[in-house]
Amino acid sequence: MKFLPDYEDIERAHSLIAPFVHRTPVMTSISVNTITAGNLYFKCENFQKVGAFKFRGASNAVFSLSEEEAQKGVATHSSGNHAAALALAARMRGIPAHIVMPSTSPEIKKRAVEGYGGMITLCEPTLQARESTLNEVVQKTSATVVHPYDNFFVIAGQGTAVKELIEDRGPFDLIIAPIGGGGLLSGTAIAAKYLLPSCRVIAAEPAGADDAYRSFHAHRIIPSENPKTIADGLLTSLGQRNFAIISGLVDDIVTVSEEKIIEAMRMIWERMKIIIEPSSAVPLGAILEGKIRVEGLKTGIILSGGNLDLGKLPF
Amino acid sequence: MKFLPDYEDIERAHSLIAPFVHRTPVMTSISVNTITAGNLYFKCENFQKVGAFKFRGASNAVFSLSEEEAQKGVATHSSGNHAAALALAARMRGIPAHIVMPSTSPEIKKRAVEGYGGMITLCEPTLQARESTLNEVVQKTSATVVHPYDNFFVIAGQGTAVKELIEDRGPFDLIIAPIGGGGLLSGTAIAAKYLLPSCRVIAAEPAGADDAYRSFHAHRIIPSENPKTIADGLLTSLGQRNFAIISGLVDDIVTVSEEKIIEAMRMIWERMKIIIEPSSAVPLGAILEGKIRVEGLKTGIILSGGNLDLGKLPF
Repeated sequence: MKFLPDYEDIERAHSLIAPFVHRTPVMTSISVNTITAGNLYFKCENFQKVGAFKFRGASNAVFSLSEEEAQKGVATHSSGNHAAALALAARMRGIPAHIVMPSTSPEIKKRAVEGYGGMITLCEPTLQARESTLNEVVQKTSATVVHPYDNFFVIAGQGTAVKELIEDRGPFDLIIAPIGGGGLLSGTAIAAKYLLPSCRVIAAEPAGADDAYRSFHAHRIIPSENPKTIADGLLTSLGQRNFAIISGLVDDIVTVSEEKIIEAMRMIWERMKIIIEPSSAVPLGAILEGKIRVEGLKTGIILSGGNLDLGKLPF
Repeated sequence: MKFLPDYEDIERAHSLIAPFVHRTPVMTSISVNTITAGNLYFKCENFQKVGAFKFRGASNAVFSLSEEEAQKGVATHSSGNHAAALALAARMRGIPAHIVMPSTSPEIKKRAVEGYGGMITLCEPTLQARESTLNEVVQKTSATVVHPYDNFFVIAGQGTAVKELIEDRGPFDLIIAPIGGGGLLSGTAIAAKYLLPSCRVIAAEPAGADDAYRSFHAHRIIPSENPKTIADGLLTSLGQRNFAIISGLVDDIVTVSEEKIIEAMRMIWERMKIIIEPSSAVPLGAILEGKIRVEGLKTGIILSGGNLDLGKLPF
């Protein structure tokens, strides 16, 4: 078994999951292009099933299991989009999904996972409790653990988004993705660099959760400490596989202020009439902040998802 | 010159404006279908230029002018989507657009019209002042007045939205549109009844601005008095042409509470990840309120637009 996926694994993932995932649209906006002097193409994973790109990786992990493994189900600890995505993918294959969630998770997130048929085990809200509870679940069920980003099949699955973007609207001079744990970015980098060797791949990260920025420039993983950002999908620390791929393939990682993340989010809502979550706004925020130059460059941007509490908007 | 457009006029409009308007996408949502027990297809005019279907009618009016008429420009009084739509259509043809707006209009609406190159004349915020100011502008410029909905070319232009919907995803058993002045609904009814004679066409109107509901059932125009609804695109009273067409072709008009308009709007934002303005939510609101039955019916719904102040949301 290879440790890191390559483009063939992304192609295999795409064939496997195509019947289950949406081939999401690519949108452009004359007014956003005018404001940024860019030529931007947005891959709309906010329209993906469960409202986020996470469903690609989760379904690749679930449908890559052997029949024997599958019968025992899958398990993870997560309270976010990955939990919902894994639950739905498992339901589509007709197998159990065991989701460990902190007891403090908002009701709305628990209901989302239950709505997709996931079986929730609550635990204390500490990383240690989450891991020990997940271990107990696995010992009891022999379910396969699917990590949200540091997982071979998850990375390969996430790479299918940019593969579609390039097939539908490529080539590109530049591709930008947000970075949290690095699942989306590592899959994106593998596919983009294979299909378009001269295309630059840049990641945008909230300044308040800049572990990937610091790790990339220090050439070693520096874990996140007390990250704080409105982009709550990007709070996690880089995974091992993700760091290895990103170190080898990504051209740069830049950081973005909270102010510009919010400004970019509002701009996409107002100008493009689509709902994106704050994490999705980080790449455009980096452009608005002058951290990434797009003038004269055909640029692809992954909008990672559209799940947020509409009752708690920053504007 | 005919008083009322028919399907041929909608076809002619479509050929004329096709180079200028977006052929907007049609979206579906498994979760909204599950909630409503329906099979709903949403025509997304929130993605139309200027963010509303109004650009179809305005551009048909502008591009239907003779060269001689066109040179003198177009004029209207409006502070909403029609003003922006007419300004942009005029700019595309390279002719002046004179927009009469009440001095109390929000700055953001003035800037939108100016941004599209419209020339604003401010007036006192009364209907009388708007009309007399418009008359002065027309006497000075000989511009052609383009009424927001009681206009032959505007009605024909608005009918192109449902023509696309039927071409792309038809046939339908039922089509639902919101109603304000009746421009969208009358164009919709002409096209739908021509292309799908057995398809029912139903309009949904806010209970707080129910002049079309009352006029339809009384068989005469009853003007709006102190209408009040969050669906601010639907405050206007029915036009003459619009009433004539609607009386002849529309199967029913139903009213919707504010509560269900807001619930429907939030549902579309959360489940479909798109921004719609309150007026667009009225048809789904009618379904949620039990006013229109969609079970077992293939149903088309026009989402009229996506312009609203994100700083003033009802949730």
